[in-house]
Amino acid sequence: MAETAEQARLAQLELLGDATEFAGRIHGLITCSPLFENFNLAEIRELSRFMRVYRAEPGAEIIGEGQSGDFMVLLIEGMIGTWKSFGEMSMIDGEQRFASCIAAESCLVAVLSRESLARIILEQPTLGAKVLMELVLMLSQRLRQTSTKLVAFMDRERS
Amino acid sequence: MAETAEQARLAQLELLGDATEFAGRIHGLITCSPLFENFNLAEIRELSRFMRVYRAEPGAEIIGEGQSGDFMVLLIEGMIGTWKSFGEMSMIDGEQRFASCIAAESCLVAVLSRESLARIILEQPTLGAKVLMELVLMLSQRLRQTSTKLVAFMDRERS
Repeated sequence: MAETAEQARLAQLELLGDATEFAGRIHGLITCSPLFENFNLAEIRELSRFMRVYRAEPGAEIIGEGQSGDFMVLLIEGMIGTWKSFGEMSMIDGEQRFASCIAAESCLVAVLSRESLARIILEQPTLGAKVLMELVLMLSQRLRQTSTKLVAFMDRERS
Repeated sequence: MAETAEQARLAQLELLGDATEFAGRIHGLITCSPLFENFNLAEIRELSRFMRVYRAEPGAEIIGEGQSGDFMVLLIEGMIGTWKSFGEMSMIDGEQRFASCIAAESCLVAVLSRESLARIILEQPTLGAKVLMELVLMLSQRLRQTSTKLVAFMDRERS
């Protein structure tokens, strides 16, 4: 694979190759991450061909606030704050990152880039639609939570 | 077409049939609504087969806050607050509506239900993936705006 924007941005991490050999572990994450809960192992295997896995040592910055971004990260092993997957907004709209994410301990992360997502949609539209449907669902629920909190703050300010 | 949940919910509006004959007008909305800006007229035509058009008289409730929802609405003509399209969150996650939407004047709306979106994905996965990609983009940008506002409120409260 040629060097991509994602690889350049993640040069401080160790690239372990594509995610196919991690498909089983990614499938095992389903209990704690809602993103792939409707995917069976065969679909995760297929998807893994389009993702890369990196090792991040403690303290390494995986996502920097304010950076432009075009990939999302799935945490396979280790600790980075409280999100199991993050970066979805930037992967989609390419805007600046909303928050920084630093490895709290040695981490294993799987990365899905916008370029790979575009390839999935082109080469396997049904699988691509499934990934997008899950992303829409997740963003939608998160927007609902955030909007509810915002409305509560605005109401409190008014009263 | 059989009576659907969408039709039952919108019984107070006049059903004008599927949206195919409105494809040109929907395509014309592109300048003011970002949802379909990457669709050409042929794609909008294809999509229109899966949407229904309703006429809402002034004062008619199109979306009721707190109702469960499984469709989204595209405003073709008339006025309903400030959103050009709304209901995306409920269409996707089926949860309660976040806000009420009342026709401020006689309105023409095109409706896309979750059931129709599922059919598009099944029958035309490439078109389905394109619709989903636009939804993800829109939700992502809206989540970013809402999160930015929420963070500003929280910062102000802390200081």
